[in-house]
Amino acid sequence: VTIPATTLAVSGDRFAATYDLIGDPGEARARAEAICVEQTIEFPADLIADDDIRRHVIGRIEALDVVGPARVRAHISYAVETSAFQLPQLLTVLFGNCSLLPRVRLVGFELPPSMLGHFRGPRYGSEGLRERLGITDRPLMATALKPMGLGATQLAAMAGVLATAGIDLIKDDQGLADQPWARFEDRVRACAAAVHEANDRTGGRAVYLPVLNGPTEELVARAQAAKEAGAGGFLILPGLIGFDAMRALADDDLIGLPIMAHPGFLGSFVSSEDAGIEHGVVLGALMRLAGADLSIFPSYGGRFSFSRDACASIAEACRQPMGLVRPCLPAPGGGMTLPRIGELLDFYGNDVALLIGGDLHRGDLLDNARRMREAVERLSTAQPAAIAGG
Amino acid sequence: VTIPATTLAVSGDRFAATYDLIGDPGEARARAEAICVEQTIEFPADLIADDDIRRHVIGRIEALDVVGPARVRAHISYAVETSAFQLPQLLTVLFGNCSLLPRVRLVGFELPPSMLGHFRGPRYGSEGLRERLGITDRPLMATALKPMGLGATQLAAMAGVLATAGIDLIKDDQGLADQPWARFEDRVRACAAAVHEANDRTGGRAVYLPVLNGPTEELVARAQAAKEAGAGGFLILPGLIGFDAMRALADDDLIGLPIMAHPGFLGSFVSSEDAGIEHGVVLGALMRLAGADLSIFPSYGGRFSFSRDACASIAEACRQPMGLVRPCLPAPGGGMTLPRIGELLDFYGNDVALLIGGDLHRGDLLDNARRMREAVERLSTAQPAAIAGG
Repeated sequence: VTIPATTLAVSGDRFAATYDLIGDPGEARARAEAICVEQTIEFPADLIADDDIRRHVIGRIEALDVVGPARVRAHISYAVETSAFQLPQLLTVLFGNCSLLPRVRLVGFELPPSMLGHFRGPRYGSEGLRERLGITDRPLMATALKPMGLGATQLAAMAGVLATAGIDLIKDDQGLADQPWARFEDRVRACAAAVHEANDRTGGRAVYLPVLNGPTEELVARAQAAKEAGAGGFLILPGLIGFDAMRALADDDLIGLPIMAHPGFLGSFVSSEDAGIEHGVVLGALMRLAGADLSIFPSYGGRFSFSRDACASIAEACRQPMGLVRPCLPAPGGGMTLPRIGELLDFYGNDVALLIGGDLHRGDLLDNARRMREAVERLSTAQPAAIAGG
Repeated sequence: VTIPATTLAVSGDRFAATYDLIGDPGEARARAEAICVEQTIEFPADLIADDDIRRHVIGRIEALDVVGPARVRAHISYAVETSAFQLPQLLTVLFGNCSLLPRVRLVGFELPPSMLGHFRGPRYGSEGLRERLGITDRPLMATALKPMGLGATQLAAMAGVLATAGIDLIKDDQGLADQPWARFEDRVRACAAAVHEANDRTGGRAVYLPVLNGPTEELVARAQAAKEAGAGGFLILPGLIGFDAMRALADDDLIGLPIMAHPGFLGSFVSSEDAGIEHGVVLGALMRLAGADLSIFPSYGGRFSFSRDACASIAEACRQPMGLVRPCLPAPGGGMTLPRIGELLDFYGNDVALLIGGDLHRGDLLDNARRMREAVERLSTAQPAAIAGG
């Protein structure tokens, strides 16, 4: 054995990860043991002495539960120190190499206070966002500026109409980057000005959220420039710039604006029930831990194919207790329509940001946006949502 | 119609994306049309006038080929301008929302010179790396410092042994972040010094590549500090820090060191044949476009489950023509062993970096590492690899 027996100063605190192992239950223990090694030392376990690396660094199987005919849920814990208390390394331990193993799905994780204390999470969260926007109890309303191809002036005109109608959150479509026909700076300046002008006129508090989608070298400068131009938040795609880059923007006190997270490029994590990461974990818990004040996801019944259960799990993960990390707002979208507002609020409850995009453009935009506002106010319910944890 | 008819100055240049649509071939055209819209305007197509947005911005179906009983390959082209000539937005157009659609797999993309000119790709690539390391024709050898839990002094001792034996690339294990028992700065300083000391002694040119795994705010500073401490390159996990953050590090002239990319957290893109992104696209072409000089992947026959075909597609994507973007080196690893070197070289050819980790520690590390070096030199073949494109 060439690896010296090692003594480590560790707290004894551990965090929990839960994996579904799909396949023969008789192989589950061996597979769980392999995960304990793969996610930490990634080294032949038989070459490790009976030391603190074996006792503390290698993951530990806490329980194996059969949850289906060919599905065993493995509860594994890791020493908090393995995460370095930093998001990229936490994700490495939770699912880095594991993502490359067949038929393993990360279905949950739980961090002790000693780790959660290192994560600020959403700067505003659900409550802070409501306070900032002056909305006490009704659902928030969100929409997107599109289609790609319009110029800054046209997008700004659209933003002005939407703000006039009282839509709370007016975001760039995630595909508006820095195209020649609507450069980032021009677009942000024009759209922010149009929203502010409408607010001045109506007494409203609508905000404009430009998309920050690289290049990496310019992210912080773009965020600052957008803030100076009057942006009220940002749309971020952690699937493209990384969860930790979103976390860094959320943590930046010089920026300090709300963040709306978009699931673009992250769909492959949820597309198979036998691999990847559970919907609520990747689009709820991780978004929130990484600083999203709102998490967009494609709702059931739209252009995409998320089930009601998947959507409920995302909304629940946005809201459930997570130490001092603030709850964030689920933002279901992806083909939502005006006639569905009542049903969506019944399902998601009031603590939600309803995202309706293209459907507002069928007919007169101002009228439709006003109907959205009116419907949300009328259909807001004091009653709890239909979904668990809502 | 509220969207004004729009005139756009576009070049007419287009880039190509190829998607496999799994399911009823009779629905393939409608699904391909939906992708053309979803990836660009994300807006009801019937509300778009007969204008330049319709003609140029919406994706265009170039061909639909039935490639299996329930599999249609859709060749779709997009105007180069939609990508804003930037990586995050290119990924958004290629697969952003598409990742959230069921049973769609991105199996290829091709960029015209007008786009490739905006991507430097690998700073060194296969040839530049060989020149830098003074290795003309034999395969490169790589290994990892581990297990997690060892202190900086112990890891440095290990690095010194490996450099003494003549291993070319000595990287941090991807799980070595900034844990209390081996702080980033201490580890990098100690390991770089040990490798330089061994080089001085042997006349070798081994390099040490620390992992740069966040936090985002410190990435560039860490890279610079590591370079000053004598690091000869970096290990990067684009699945965690984002492809564009890797691209930015590769493009940074003040850093300018080789980059080895690690597939951690990216496995979910390849885990289903009916969703996600083809192995060669995500672990070959995208790694290379985003500046990786070497791309690590779990080889067939190891702890993971990649097929021979998948591994061949990655190696091919690292090497095939891509305008002026340099070829990068495939780096198969993940449970490789000394007795397999001959077989691996037969399969991958000489233009490869063989990554052997844990197996070097079975017995005496120095002896084993020397045996690796000796085997690679002895088994190097002038003949082409068995795989296509190799």
